[in-house]
Amino acid sequence: MRLRNKPWAGEYLAENPQIVIQDPQSYKGKWHEIFGNDHPIHIEVGTGKGQFVTGMGRANPSINYIGIELFESVIVHAVKKVKESEANNVKLLNVNANNLTEYFAPAEVSRVYLNFSDPWPKTKHEKRRLTYKTFLDLYKEILVEEGEIHFKTDNQGLFEYSLKSFSDYGLKLTYISLDLHNSDFEGNIMTEYEEKFSSKGQRIYRSEVKYEKK
Amino acid sequence: MRLRNKPWAGEYLAENPQIVIQDPQSYKGKWHEIFGNDHPIHIEVGTGKGQFVTGMGRANPSINYIGIELFESVIVHAVKKVKESEANNVKLLNVNANNLTEYFAPAEVSRVYLNFSDPWPKTKHEKRRLTYKTFLDLYKEILVEEGEIHFKTDNQGLFEYSLKSFSDYGLKLTYISLDLHNSDFEGNIMTEYEEKFSSKGQRIYRSEVKYEKK
Ligand SMILES: C[S@@+](CC[C@H](N)C(=O)[O-])C[C@H]1O[C@@H](n2cnc3c(N)ncnc32)[C@H](O)[C@@H]1O
Ligand SMILES: C[S@@+](CC[C@H](N)C(=O)[O-])C[C@H]1O[C@@H](n2cnc3c(N)ncnc32)[C@H](O)[C@@H]1O
Repeated sequence: MRLRNKPWAGEYLAENPQIVIQDPQSYKGKWHEIFGNDHPIHIEVGTGKGQFVTGMGRANPSINYIGIELFESVIVHAVKKVKESEANNVKLLNVNANNLTEYFAPAEVSRVYLNFSDPWPKTKHEKRRLTYKTFLDLYKEILVEEGEIHFKTDNQGLFEYSLKSFSDYGLKLTYISLDLHNSDFEGNIMTEYEEKFSSKGQRIYRSEVKYEKK
Repeated sequence: MRLRNKPWAGEYLAENPQIVIQDPQSYKGKWHEIFGNDHPIHIEVGTGKGQFVTGMGRANPSINYIGIELFESVIVHAVKKVKESEANNVKLLNVNANNLTEYFAPAEVSRVYLNFSDPWPKTKHEKRRLTYKTFLDLYKEILVEEGEIHFKTDNQGLFEYSLKSFSDYGLKLTYISLDLHNSDFEGNIMTEYEEKFSSKGQRIYRSEVKYEKK
């Protein structure tokens, strides 16, 4: 996603602290206070403009969603969508996923969604891929026992890489589709990138993996 | 592959005992005697008409290949190809892969190839798929430590199933291509089915998995 200069973006985020949680470190281990219930928490890393997390929030009222997005200029669109949806089970964080363990306590999260993550195709950038082993470590730290990662992408190279990375890490593959939009998967919620790429005729790949019992 | 009635097929096999090994039980643990050397043995399960195993034999003279095919009417074509190639590192067995452990001793085989295996798409036929767990048990029994399975198919459903089955079994995914013919994989030897399906524009999927240390 392109970073455009939006001087008003920071202001807009600050004006919506009930959606974009400020000072998220202070909620580590206490996210249920924000949501006012003990429903499971699912996070999306690299939320972009928020269509997925908003749609999931609407479809699944007994799950709490937290969308994590690095760029102010992108997350502002997600804020608007959450606002319009009036969902109170969807929150956003304008932070870097590298620091996930600063914001979430062990076993506080039940599921991680990765949708159309940046592919970083060059080998020298492998460590930046959100399915690289150091990220799998981070997710493991904040996930419940047998926590899951659900991953969608149109990028063949990233999908191939991720399947190997998951396997290497000892994650169990519990679901896979090599052509999601021509599969019998029900209840798919499209992301912005998914709409764009699938309308161009690109295949969408999808997998679910599960950590082993601790 | 369609089974056509070929009354001469049995006779033809019997006439070529240096290629189609008769009484293979008696070579269990002694296949190096057949080949006259101690080179690693790679087997292909469901060899069909033998183009792959013959081509691999030609390309890799220091590997011994054994193609296993159930149907007489199909394996006769493989016999002809092996004969014409004059390869002495390629042998064939006209047996059922269900009984692999009767023909091979523990650690006698270094690699198993599965190419365009019958997909058996109905759930009730899952046990017949050559990547079902009982087959993974058989391969494990005859393979060396960290032995490998190399698998190619055009069948999306079988490939998805197999990746899950491998993961469930604890096999490590060491290679994957979701579009072999548009990848940088070198030295691919096409099978008969591969030529047929890829010429129709079908994608070819390919994976390599490895058993853990024992
Ligand atoms: C290719 S976009 C996909 C957006 C959205 N998931 C979709 O499918 O439409 C990837 C997004 O991930 C965000 N991102 C990448 N690395 C991140 C990180 N370390 N922490 C937070 N967000 C990140 C990027 O800013 C970008 O908005
Ligand atoms: C779809 S064909 C593919 C043939 C060849 N590998 C190719 O790619 O052209 C599958 C072959 O596997 C053989 N086969 C299936 N199950 C088998 C078994 N249990 N033991 C031996 N051969 C088997 C079938 O007879 C058939 O010839």
